Amino acid sequence: MEYRVQAPASLREPLQVPDKLLMGPGPSNAHPRVLEAMSRPILGHLHPETLKIMDDIKDGVRYLFQTNNAATFCLSASGHGGMEATLCNLLEDGDVVLIGHTGHWGDRAADMAARYGADVHMVRAAPGASLTLAELRKAIETYRPSVLFLTQGDSSTGVLQGLEGVGAVCRANDCLLIVDTVASLGGVPFFMDRWEIDAVYTGSQKVLGAPPGITPISFNHRAVERYKRRQSKVKVYYWDMFLVGDYWGCFGRPRIYHHTISSTLLYGLREAVALACEESIPSLIARHQDCARRLHDGITAMGLELYAQERDRLPTVTTIRVPKDVDWLKVAQHAMKTYLVEISGGLGPTAGQVFRIGLMGQNATSERVDRVLQVFRDSIKAIKPDFASRKNASKM
Amino acid sequence: MEYRVQAPASLREPLQVPDKLLMGPGPSNAHPRVLEAMSRPILGHLHPETLKIMDDIKDGVRYLFQTNNAATFCLSASGHGGMEATLCNLLEDGDVVLIGHTGHWGDRAADMAARYGADVHMVRAAPGASLTLAELRKAIETYRPSVLFLTQGDSSTGVLQGLEGVGAVCRANDCLLIVDTVASLGGVPFFMDRWEIDAVYTGSQKVLGAPPGITPISFNHRAVERYKRRQSKVKVYYWDMFLVGDYWGCFGRPRIYHHTISSTLLYGLREAVALACEESIPSLIARHQDCARRLHDGITAMGLELYAQERDRLPTVTTIRVPKDVDWLKVAQHAMKTYLVEISGGLGPTAGQVFRIGLMGQNATSERVDRVLQVFRDSIKAIKPDFASRKNASKM
Repeated sequence: MEYRVQAPASLREPLQVPDKLLMGPGPSNAHPRVLEAMSRPILGHLHPETLKIMDDIKDGVRYLFQTNNAATFCLSASGHGGMEATLCNLLEDGDVVLIGHTGHWGDRAADMAARYGADVHMVRAAPGASLTLAELRKAIETYRPSVLFLTQGDSSTGVLQGLEGVGAVCRANDCLLIVDTVASLGGVPFFMDRWEIDAVYTGSQKVLGAPPGITPISFNHRAVERYKRRQSKVKVYYWDMFLVGDYWGCFGRPRIYHHTISSTLLYGLREAVALACEESIPSLIARHQDCARRLHDGITAMGLELYAQERDRLPTVTTIRVPKDVDWLKVAQHAMKTYLVEISGGLGPTAGQVFRIGLMGQNATSERVDRVLQVFRDSIKAIKPDFASRKNASKM
Repeated sequence: MEYRVQAPASLREPLQVPDKLLMGPGPSNAHPRVLEAMSRPILGHLHPETLKIMDDIKDGVRYLFQTNNAATFCLSASGHGGMEATLCNLLEDGDVVLIGHTGHWGDRAADMAARYGADVHMVRAAPGASLTLAELRKAIETYRPSVLFLTQGDSSTGVLQGLEGVGAVCRANDCLLIVDTVASLGGVPFFMDRWEIDAVYTGSQKVLGAPPGITPISFNHRAVERYKRRQSKVKVYYWDMFLVGDYWGCFGRPRIYHHTISSTLLYGLREAVALACEESIPSLIARHQDCARRLHDGITAMGLELYAQERDRLPTVTTIRVPKDVDWLKVAQHAMKTYLVEISGGLGPTAGQVFRIGLMGQNATSERVDRVLQVFRDSIKAIKPDFASRKNASKM
């Protein structure tokens, strides 16, 4: 009587979680060891066992980023939190930021940076292409930004942005370099220290195959110095590098409570990072690149066209032009309904124009490439029965 | 050779997670059904099964908050995210915010609000006490805030803040009322709609016994109207009520991708909310209050003094003055090492002054109250062998 809002009947039904093959741009399927770890009991945010797991993750993340940065930790948020935190910590009102645009993530970063009060400029690559070092240098010399933001692997376009040499240009122009490696890390080479990258973050739920919700991030000494010279406090307590970093024990000061971390997500990420370290970066990358080649060959053999230019193709996310007269959504729905296989459509600038197939972590095997190719072909044919892939055509 | 940073040896060791009894101010122990759910396969952030789970959670959260608000959803962040999001969505540069201070969480909210550019004023309760309606009215009439922030249950002091009548005073003064129920919801009555509360959030890892990392939140129509009248964009994309709310399907518009939600945390929260709904709010509250009484009696019988005033005691977190000549840290460490039972020290204004014992969710049973009392007594005696509890003394 006093309780006017009733409990919903739906919550009396059991939880339903089908087991799908996640071949979209992420999340990818998690390893059974990762899933098992997440059913372990909850631990407190300052328990020694929790701090030990955090330390192990920090060391593993340093290996994956190839950095010795002290300020290497995780945010208790999805990958978007990494974008927020790098921008929020390194920008103040009126600062000029330059965004290298190779797809949706450039737009997202521009939106965030503007909200933080930055003066946002954009340098745009041609559709399906990355930016050249010359284009980036020219834009830096034109806009004189204090921060350059690049996406190494833009999951909306499947474009891989080259990073070698960019750090040196930034350094010569007193500009910090932020790189988003959410969709790329583990699938392509990445060397934070050697490439002089000042701030980076990645996604837990892509190549690593951990759950989303916890985001590895690293800042180098130049980024830390920029933070120290700020005139104003970082606008968001939750993203403040020094506060989160102190909780993660990054700066040699006592650990302080910042927020209540999710032990569950730590367990999952810890096991995922451990699996990646066991496999080693070179073999992880080779596996993703071999699978991407197999996928690209299969797609081309079907008579379909890849969206990203050949020299700029990201192995982890492949974009495929939607053939004329094919309803991409129906194809994706057919694949999901009939086979429990996820194939995605475009995002942002590629919405309606492309399919996206992800090969990440546990899903980067030749068996799964063959599976997704078969499902993709069958689903297109189910929606458009007269679709004749080149492979079939050549048999005729 | 090319990889200069090596993979850490520590990640070759198995993950170690001891099973503890978490009788601190949170997180609490999760129900086995919650833990099992989190080992289910990962789902995508826009899969229909995911959206169904989100809808179920929304309905369950509406019941727990006792609200019909459309804008009821969760943030992919710890409880701190709820504080960030309520302040960030409802404040603009120069807005006056009044913080009702009953402990640490008032300080935290003041820090965040100042970072968002607000003009922050504080009304402070006496230590161990809550604010009266008269004190709040006077402060509102003095500072003319556009937002009042209150903590229903301050876990640092164990103080319960009364809320009845505050909403009406706010409404009469064109002020929005934000309430933090992180440590209180499910342990004491809470009626969002009846009490005219404009924005609220709670913790997943307290009475609900879900993992931390996902934070239920709700805004009423007044808060939504305030948002719509903003002169400036919400400063943080990740906390933007309309963007997250559209992803959660709150405003009748198409679901749009905002961030990659953690299906794992959704599973855990869904099961925890389902358990709370099955038990029902009245019996959940009665169980917490019965257990708190038992705990308070036991503490008093030991000759120890409760920190919070009798009329202002929070059932979920009990604060106990550290007796003279007792090293609280050694007591807590003894309890943890010898019994794997968590008993906490103070936080912020109560640091070093109190012990904190939490009774939340699965841990609010008479057996666990008796267990924590026994462990607490034994641990004090282990550190201070001449400690004679009143109970023992009366036997002599």
